Amino acid sequence: MERTLVAEAVSKVGETVTLKGWVNTRRDHGKIIFIDLRDRSGIVQVVCGEDAKSLRSEYVVAITGQVKARPEKLVNKNLPTGTIEIQAEKIEVISSAEELPFDMGKEVLDVELPTLLDYRALTLRHPRVQAIFKVQEVIIDAFRRALKAKDFMEFQAPSIISSAPEGGSEIFEVKYFEHKAYLAQSPQLYKSLLVGDFERVFSVNKVFRAEPSVTTRHLTEVVSLDAEFGFINDWLEVKDMSEYVIKFILKEVEEKCAKELAMFDATIPAVPDRIPFLKLREAQQVIFERTGRDCRQEKDPSPEDEREICRWSKEKYGSDLVYITHYPTKYRPFYTYPDDEDPEYNQGFDLIGRGTEWMTGGRRLNNYQMLLAHAKQWGVSPKNIELYLQAFRYGMPPLGGFAFGAERITMHILGLKNVREASMFPRDMERIDVRLNQ
Amino acid sequence: MERTLVAEAVSKVGETVTLKGWVNTRRDHGKIIFIDLRDRSGIVQVVCGEDAKSLRSEYVVAITGQVKARPEKLVNKNLPTGTIEIQAEKIEVISSAEELPFDMGKEVLDVELPTLLDYRALTLRHPRVQAIFKVQEVIIDAFRRALKAKDFMEFQAPSIISSAPEGGSEIFEVKYFEHKAYLAQSPQLYKSLLVGDFERVFSVNKVFRAEPSVTTRHLTEVVSLDAEFGFINDWLEVKDMSEYVIKFILKEVEEKCAKELAMFDATIPAVPDRIPFLKLREAQQVIFERTGRDCRQEKDPSPEDEREICRWSKEKYGSDLVYITHYPTKYRPFYTYPDDEDPEYNQGFDLIGRGTEWMTGGRRLNNYQMLLAHAKQWGVSPKNIELYLQAFRYGMPPLGGFAFGAERITMHILGLKNVREASMFPRDMERIDVRLNQ
Repeated sequence: MERTLVAEAVSKVGETVTLKGWVNTRRDHGKIIFIDLRDRSGIVQVVCGEDAKSLRSEYVVAITGQVKARPEKLVNKNLPTGTIEIQAEKIEVISSAEELPFDMGKEVLDVELPTLLDYRALTLRHPRVQAIFKVQEVIIDAFRRALKAKDFMEFQAPSIISSAPEGGSEIFEVKYFEHKAYLAQSPQLYKSLLVGDFERVFSVNKVFRAEPSVTTRHLTEVVSLDAEFGFINDWLEVKDMSEYVIKFILKEVEEKCAKELAMFDATIPAVPDRIPFLKLREAQQVIFERTGRDCRQEKDPSPEDEREICRWSKEKYGSDLVYITHYPTKYRPFYTYPDDEDPEYNQGFDLIGRGTEWMTGGRRLNNYQMLLAHAKQWGVSPKNIELYLQAFRYGMPPLGGFAFGAERITMHILGLKNVREASMFPRDMERIDVRLNQ
Repeated sequence: MERTLVAEAVSKVGETVTLKGWVNTRRDHGKIIFIDLRDRSGIVQVVCGEDAKSLRSEYVVAITGQVKARPEKLVNKNLPTGTIEIQAEKIEVISSAEELPFDMGKEVLDVELPTLLDYRALTLRHPRVQAIFKVQEVIIDAFRRALKAKDFMEFQAPSIISSAPEGGSEIFEVKYFEHKAYLAQSPQLYKSLLVGDFERVFSVNKVFRAEPSVTTRHLTEVVSLDAEFGFINDWLEVKDMSEYVIKFILKEVEEKCAKELAMFDATIPAVPDRIPFLKLREAQQVIFERTGRDCRQEKDPSPEDEREICRWSKEKYGSDLVYITHYPTKYRPFYTYPDDEDPEYNQGFDLIGRGTEWMTGGRRLNNYQMLLAHAKQWGVSPKNIELYLQAFRYGMPPLGGFAFGAERITMHILGLKNVREASMFPRDMERIDVRLNQ
């Protein structure tokens, strides 16, 4: 008999169906055994006889039975299939399962992070864990659609690069035949050079950071969402495009992930018509005036500064998100565009939300001679960025772009405590699927 | 004045517009200078005075002028904008360009492959080179949409792995802090284990192959299109799903890329309602009977065999594509599902088209004990596939899937001679953007 999905059974009261899925939980009430059966569409209650006694959690089964409407008072309002149950007639075991190392039947999985990850193949079956990746899929899909609607082309950025363009020790080395190669830390140079070819490009790509620290916010391999475009009139156009994209994503998550948001008691950040923005030095002045803490000479906002400016933004504009712009040029990468009025500060921005960074972007230099001069000043060898420079030698329009990490944005929206929860297979100093120091 | 795209100008005859783009070519006719202006939407002819004398190819310019209808006899039927030209009133140089190393104005770029790649930032501006990546974007997008329509979930497969599960020397080593790690050759084990979590998954991910050879078909970094799903009744369902996906892709390319296909004189492969399929041993018998060449004991078809079976398929079924199934089990990976009737052969398949492999797939083992036995027999250490095995220990439905490379499928559809042409930034033994042995 053809398989019926759990979610489809709701509309088949009175019919006999065959469901296939996993035993989520088993509850014994004397001779009646209740099975919660789980498939990709949801969970439904199955009423079985004693032949279900041999079933354990995570057994894969095919159950044939009649769909029955539950009496009004027995309707389970927490379950989309709560109006029905299945009266099992035949149970077939497709695949058995070993005894579970912990209870997978609880609404919130009660295990520590290392256990969550040691048993990743198993814990990814838990509905609340799955919800994280459904939200992430919607985020990535929304990112793509937002940009395609604006005529951006998706490209596949390379992972293996031949040199560490901006130096730095936080880059992974690859043994590449007889050569040394590296893993890309960002598709920045590729997306910029492609503006010379396709004008508007974006990518969803892995980037790699060899950060020798174990924090709640860092992974060695992350999914970077990158966009870049040309023929801009000024940096405000770049900020506006990033604002359009982030609002598009938030709207999509709100519309498509109500159930998943509810599982985490998460709400979409409040955003007014225009996300407020102010320069770093202005933000620092605001913080000084509000708290007396003088950070007006700092090159970056501290975590406490970020939280304070978010409080200010919320109070003054009702906005959970706020842009901080115009950071000191010399601490930013060589391709950064210095502000015309005050070249000490750049035409870049960070989007801050709920007290932490969500996204970064800005205008880039497009003049070949200036770019070359900056590269030298920043200690970047032109030989290491040869292909990138080539694009600017042969005519490049004014350009800019922005980037953010899929895992972090998922973490921020759902309010997760650790970015590892927002990566299916998180890699860090101590773990690549399994613990490295076992 | 707000920018008008080249393609939009066609509907603005009589209006004054500002176009922004690159000088594609300049043709001088005494005091009249014709500029072909290129932007992301196309190319249009601009009629200029002597002030255009300073413009060279690839200069980035803003041109303001009136859109004029061309007289009937001067309509250029090869150009979508051939019914109009722009009478330039004002030309502004946004960014200048150095003299080009070769002529970019020809319909087919007349450079050798090494030059094409040495100047990749530049050659990606050529309309016929861009066409390749527009087709590739459509292929990848169609792959995603075909599978989403069947309830598959997109996931991000890891690139860094902790061990070489199937051994082999063709794997890149990464210096991972104090450990050795590797670059994934395939997301196979991840997509299979995720069937235990999400039932139906797909990914668009980089995979890495350290093949120490320079051929027209190999890259060290490729975009792999992977799908895997559970609760199958038999291997035919896997083949059928792959057939649905490939047909969906071909239809999308046919509908959306007519212009690009024409640039390469390419036609979409002819496919009947059902793509023919036959077992390897049957195919070898056919080849023996047709040619007298006895390959009936070979474990794989040779390139000449692949061409011959394609000729047969075309003659007998009018199909440019044909599945060869049931390869010798012992030469295939440990997770391969042996045919119930004859376990010496597996329930796997390759899709062959136009004389070469397009796609590979098959059913996988889902029984934990059998998988463990196979792993041992194949010399795969269970410790190296711990997370993968975990999924099967806790209940896994019957499953299968398929995979193919985005660059190769692009090459096959467009009839390119070298897979490097189908990668924006191809990597091989001798090149990572720049030549490695300079």
